[in-house]
Amino acid sequence: MADGRQKIKVGVLGATGTVGQRFIVLLSQHPWFVIHKLGASPRSAGKPYARAVNWKQAVPIPSAATDIVVHPCQPEHFADCPVVFSGLDADVAGDIEFAFRAAELAVFSNAKNFRRDPNVPLIVPLVNPNHLSIVPQQQRLCSLRKGFIVTNANCSTTTIVVPLTALEKAFGPIESVLVTTMQAISGAGYPGVASLDIMDNVVPYIGGEEEKIEWETLKILGGVQASDDGADGKTLAFDMHARHPLRVSAQCNRVPVIDGHTECVSVRFARRPPPSPQQVREALAAYTPDAQTLGCPSAPRRCIVVHEEPDRPQPRLDRYFQDGAGVSVGRVRQCQVLDIKFVALANNVSIGAATSSIINAEYAVLKGIVALPQQA
Amino acid sequence: MADGRQKIKVGVLGATGTVGQRFIVLLSQHPWFVIHKLGASPRSAGKPYARAVNWKQAVPIPSAATDIVVHPCQPEHFADCPVVFSGLDADVAGDIEFAFRAAELAVFSNAKNFRRDPNVPLIVPLVNPNHLSIVPQQQRLCSLRKGFIVTNANCSTTTIVVPLTALEKAFGPIESVLVTTMQAISGAGYPGVASLDIMDNVVPYIGGEEEKIEWETLKILGGVQASDDGADGKTLAFDMHARHPLRVSAQCNRVPVIDGHTECVSVRFARRPPPSPQQVREALAAYTPDAQTLGCPSAPRRCIVVHEEPDRPQPRLDRYFQDGAGVSVGRVRQCQVLDIKFVALANNVSIGAATSSIINAEYAVLKGIVALPQQA
Amino acid sequence: MADGRQKIKVGVLGATGTVGQRFIVLLSQHPWFVIHKLGASPRSAGKPYARAVNWKQAVPIPSAATDIVVHPCQPEHFADCPVVFSGLDADVAGDIEFAFRAAELAVFSNAKNFRRDPNVPLIVPLVNPNHLSIVPQQQRLCSLRKGFIVTNANCSTTTIVVPLTALEKAFGPIESVLVTTMQAISGAGYPGVASLDIMDNVVPYIGGEEEKIEWETLKILGGVQASDDGADGKTLAFDMHARHPLRVSAQCNRVPVIDGHTECVSVRFARRPPPSPQQVREALAAYTPDAQTLGCPSAPRRCIVVHEEPDRPQPRLDRYFQDGAGVSVGRVRQCQVLDIKFVALANNVSIGAATSSIINAEYAVLKGIVALPQQA
Amino acid sequence: MADGRQKIKVGVLGATGTVGQRFIVLLSQHPWFVIHKLGASPRSAGKPYARAVNWKQAVPIPSAATDIVVHPCQPEHFADCPVVFSGLDADVAGDIEFAFRAAELAVFSNAKNFRRDPNVPLIVPLVNPNHLSIVPQQQRLCSLRKGFIVTNANCSTTTIVVPLTALEKAFGPIESVLVTTMQAISGAGYPGVASLDIMDNVVPYIGGEEEKIEWETLKILGGVQASDDGADGKTLAFDMHARHPLRVSAQCNRVPVIDGHTECVSVRFARRPPPSPQQVREALAAYTPDAQTLGCPSAPRRCIVVHEEPDRPQPRLDRYFQDGAGVSVGRVRQCQVLDIKFVALANNVSIGAATSSIINAEYAVLKGIVALPQQA
Repeated sequence: MADGRQKIKVGVLGATGTVGQRFIVLLSQHPWFVIHKLGASPRSAGKPYARAVNWKQAVPIPSAATDIVVHPCQPEHFADCPVVFSGLDADVAGDIEFAFRAAELAVFSNAKNFRRDPNVPLIVPLVNPNHLSIVPQQQRLCSLRKGFIVTNANCSTTTIVVPLTALEKAFGPIESVLVTTMQAISGAGYPGVASLDIMDNVVPYIGGEEEKIEWETLKILGGVQASDDGADGKTLAFDMHARHPLRVSAQCNRVPVIDGHTECVSVRFARRPPPSPQQVREALAAYTPDAQTLGCPSAPRRCIVVHEEPDRPQPRLDRYFQDGAGVSVGRVRQCQVLDIKFVALANNVSIGAATSSIINAEYAVLKGIVALPQQA
Repeated sequence: MADGRQKIKVGVLGATGTVGQRFIVLLSQHPWFVIHKLGASPRSAGKPYARAVNWKQAVPIPSAATDIVVHPCQPEHFADCPVVFSGLDADVAGDIEFAFRAAELAVFSNAKNFRRDPNVPLIVPLVNPNHLSIVPQQQRLCSLRKGFIVTNANCSTTTIVVPLTALEKAFGPIESVLVTTMQAISGAGYPGVASLDIMDNVVPYIGGEEEKIEWETLKILGGVQASDDGADGKTLAFDMHARHPLRVSAQCNRVPVIDGHTECVSVRFARRPPPSPQQVREALAAYTPDAQTLGCPSAPRRCIVVHEEPDRPQPRLDRYFQDGAGVSVGRVRQCQVLDIKFVALANNVSIGAATSSIINAEYAVLKGIVALPQQA
Repeated sequence: MADGRQKIKVGVLGATGTVGQRFIVLLSQHPWFVIHKLGASPRSAGKPYARAVNWKQAVPIPSAATDIVVHPCQPEHFADCPVVFSGLDADVAGDIEFAFRAAELAVFSNAKNFRRDPNVPLIVPLVNPNHLSIVPQQQRLCSLRKGFIVTNANCSTTTIVVPLTALEKAFGPIESVLVTTMQAISGAGYPGVASLDIMDNVVPYIGGEEEKIEWETLKILGGVQASDDGADGKTLAFDMHARHPLRVSAQCNRVPVIDGHTECVSVRFARRPPPSPQQVREALAAYTPDAQTLGCPSAPRRCIVVHEEPDRPQPRLDRYFQDGAGVSVGRVRQCQVLDIKFVALANNVSIGAATSSIINAEYAVLKGIVALPQQA
Repeated sequence: MADGRQKIKVGVLGATGTVGQRFIVLLSQHPWFVIHKLGASPRSAGKPYARAVNWKQAVPIPSAATDIVVHPCQPEHFADCPVVFSGLDADVAGDIEFAFRAAELAVFSNAKNFRRDPNVPLIVPLVNPNHLSIVPQQQRLCSLRKGFIVTNANCSTTTIVVPLTALEKAFGPIESVLVTTMQAISGAGYPGVASLDIMDNVVPYIGGEEEKIEWETLKILGGVQASDDGADGKTLAFDMHARHPLRVSAQCNRVPVIDGHTECVSVRFARRPPPSPQQVREALAAYTPDAQTLGCPSAPRRCIVVHEEPDRPQPRLDRYFQDGAGVSVGRVRQCQVLDIKFVALANNVSIGAATSSIINAEYAVLKGIVALPQQA
């Protein structure tokens, strides 16, 4: 680590998949973490990573991963990893992550399976890393000392909750959000979207995606509250915005873009009169998340860039902003129906997936939530 | 014509451009109209059409046009055309169409130049062909007997006003419309959008387009009203929805699709409670425009198709519905912020452009507004 | 049929697949054939076609097929179909087509399984329908009266053998052919090529495709010869160009094009001096295949169009030439290494697949090879 | 520079264009060169670069260039730049580069204008930097002390001459080359290719490109020879492969790929028998150009990567190999018509354009051909 201590050994589950490959690329250059164990399906187990994977990234396989022999996704192989990242597909993530937690491992998951669990935090690291405060309760309920699961949000949710949080922080509660997404094909994994379905086309539907945006946004923007639920004391629970009725309406579209989700957002504030477009621009540009001030190495140095050019953000030009860890916003202006409209763009495979898991882990390390081995 | 009379000679201005080529294709198969004169820039004038044009359609140049010698866009060359279609670019359309009208020619224009003129009707033929009623006033003001200009709407406006009209007819006034478009590159003409700007990309801005949707929708959905404006009688004027404050908020995006605009729409009705999604579906499917009942040959036999599949409409699969003259709607469901949301799709080069001009002319012929030559 | 007789009942195997859908579209408008039975996997069996299929064509499902109940691909369900078309995938086509032939059914197959069988003709209908002459020998060897299998070629082979045949007919044997293809994604079926593999990309490899071009071309361009193979008489066999060493070298690429294979071809003729580019152009334009003169209704009226413009053929502009049944050639010029080079384009889903099967069947009907039921 | 000396001031002509932007990105990180002066059209002159340019790169404008005020392309503004790079368009490059050379400036040009001049070297830095030896003769003929012009090749030529040189070095003269290219849209500059021309399409023609490949390859692969041309001594001249008739036949296609030219190559060697595919693979992988051994900082550490996977190289996966400075080769195998065929890929905007100019300048600096200012 920065202070000269040993690097933290990490494992990656689902290492041969699309998100897994992204984890490998990012972790191979990480200042604190070192790739130690890789997990994939039994078909891949036993092979060196370079032979097990159908590599699809524009950069070559990092040498740090090439020769690591892939294990099946069983906790015993990962016992010496204080941090385990999961890029597993939803159809297997539930059982495997459950088993890893039960084996006292700390799992940072990109899968959707535990996102709705009231004792599992759903964290967009540029928004609500403070939700890690629920982890001790999760451990207590599961009778665990070190194991836990932390999830990060769906990529299309991430794109909007970052600017929405900046706006709530500056102007108070948002009442309504209407969002229309134009999402990249990489969001569907590999092989994912058939070329015959998307070339010269738009598909105005992504199964389950609208529900995710509409639901996850509430959990992420809500706070963790102590609630009195019976005889012996308090329980923490997520406040799903019960007090002001934030309503989110989403229309999700798949478009022929490789990486980068573009989302058109209209919002109505509770506060009357609402802020002006210029005030909104300033609040977005000024937003500085805790992950940044706390010093998470993968957090963007600048969280939101606000474009003045009328034709930005664009996925091809803006998805690499801050190595894909930041959010680009443009076209901030009045909405004739709600208050303010704008266009937000985030890199779905970076801040929308692996990068978020990694910053979450960095934050948890800095907060002492991850149990690290004693150092000599 | 259908009753055995002679075909009506028509001219096409801007015949070598993108919209002009579309006019040529459609008119070459028309039951009433026959291509008689073609107009283009001085550079093309004097050449046979096949040599003047840089043909970009998937079908070959119709033989009906191949050998017609192109004229400059001057009224004297079109004097024997009872109907003149204009596919001119906006930078020249204003002066030329003005001169053609002054020369007692009937101009059906796809250009934007006269759309805002209060005495020029802006007609989406599946919506408001009754606005032709303003033509006599236009002629009176210009001291003309036969000449007039009729415009059709911008392609992205057309896509939404058809379903909005169906809804207003069934459920009364709509209060608010929030629309996010994903527009095809062909809407920008040729050469239009640079490939470096749109491949693997979305451009969240189309100059002037949002204003067009927001303004044109009001003129089209508004009625023509007699208003008492002074001493000697009444004047007709468009009612720009003064009585109920229809608010339209548009976000326009260019996407890598060749033909077909996909638009995500949320609406709020004045009526409380609003109609249910199922009622909306039925009203859309039942909508039958006058152009259809009156027997315009280019009107779609079915105006709106309502898809039940969750992933439709899609431009590549649905843009040829009714030869591009109909509108496809899908994903009708409740909106958590306004009342109802849905996705609409129309073929921007057909009903969104040339097809509309042609149906407008058919309607005008049937209504006796076009002055036809006496037949023996 | 044309002469007022009853239409011929046909079956389609693999009716829900990509090629099967294409068969349905073409056959629904056919002047002689009527869709009578549809076969698909057990999963689809028992359902009406419209519910069994995941329809991907730009035109709606033809009403002639909508309500036909799908059968499993067993011969007993197709006993009353004098013609059966097969759009089956290669992994099941072998067994099923074998069983259909054994049940005395006439199978016209787009699958590759029997293409190399020396007693099964491999026919590109614009090239070698005369190879149907081997059918009686196939029947004799299988002890069949009516059953047989006729195959058509791979789409990328079809594109080049049409112009090559025109050239051999005019100028005698071709010695060498070097071809580089740029093939459409629809050639890989559905879901086929993953969008992540082909957007903004070229894949310089299509498994097995180069071997098909190199081998099929020889069988198609070769003649059927009587050879004396022993005591009791002659056997027919395909002459695989034994006498002059036609060498074919292919490099196959997948490109981001939906329909239409573009192929860059260089040829060397045996004849010295070789023909000039202008002679080649004239020979290509003049080529009239037997299928055309014999009156097959699906044969193109014009077989090869030769473009003079330097930038043609292009898949998007030329793939619908002759409803996709013709071949477009352009850029005919001298090759600095071999003799002549040119670019050829054919619609892989039309003449490259279903259209070829259908013309083959038409030709077989006209030649009396298909056993038709007695008519009253 | 590496040894602690001052950086070399460089100018960039055509700084706002596509190639110019690429120069800016590369030079902003260069270990020896520092961007000192920028030249563009009079329309841009006088503005800070960030306001003059329509920036189209995925990385932000380098801060080293943001505030530099753009000058018109006149030599007096660049007098203190020992090296001037030209990314000018061909329609203006001729006159401007001529004037710069006449003003004793060293011009490294990506434009085509002087490529055919027998006294101007045409250099692909991984192939023939030794052709710089003709520079003194160029200066003598122009009566110059320091000024000269060095050009680099067209991007599609560069892709093949690197592997061809590796092969000639290992196996002696190549007799014939047949190449079919699939070229990226960025090769045409901005706005360049219209999206309507290339989406879902292939254009089998690029004006002048085939001639460039066929001609440039000869000049680059040829040597510089002393020839006795009269009374008083020798003159250097390029040997255009007079001794063995290298014949190059090219078919150039534009495909919907953003960056990276993929080229399918077949070659015939003079030597009989020709090398085997395995020998060819080894020779390609072993090739080490002088620019590398000499220590040019922008030269790739590995010049040619030879892929073993059957489906590589692919532009989207391989165009960033060695930061775009290397060449990827795959599918090396026997050709049934010539000897060996393979697929080569190079990044047209990097090694195919700006990177080549920069390595050429590095090489010229190392060889003492560029006149540097005296250092204290």
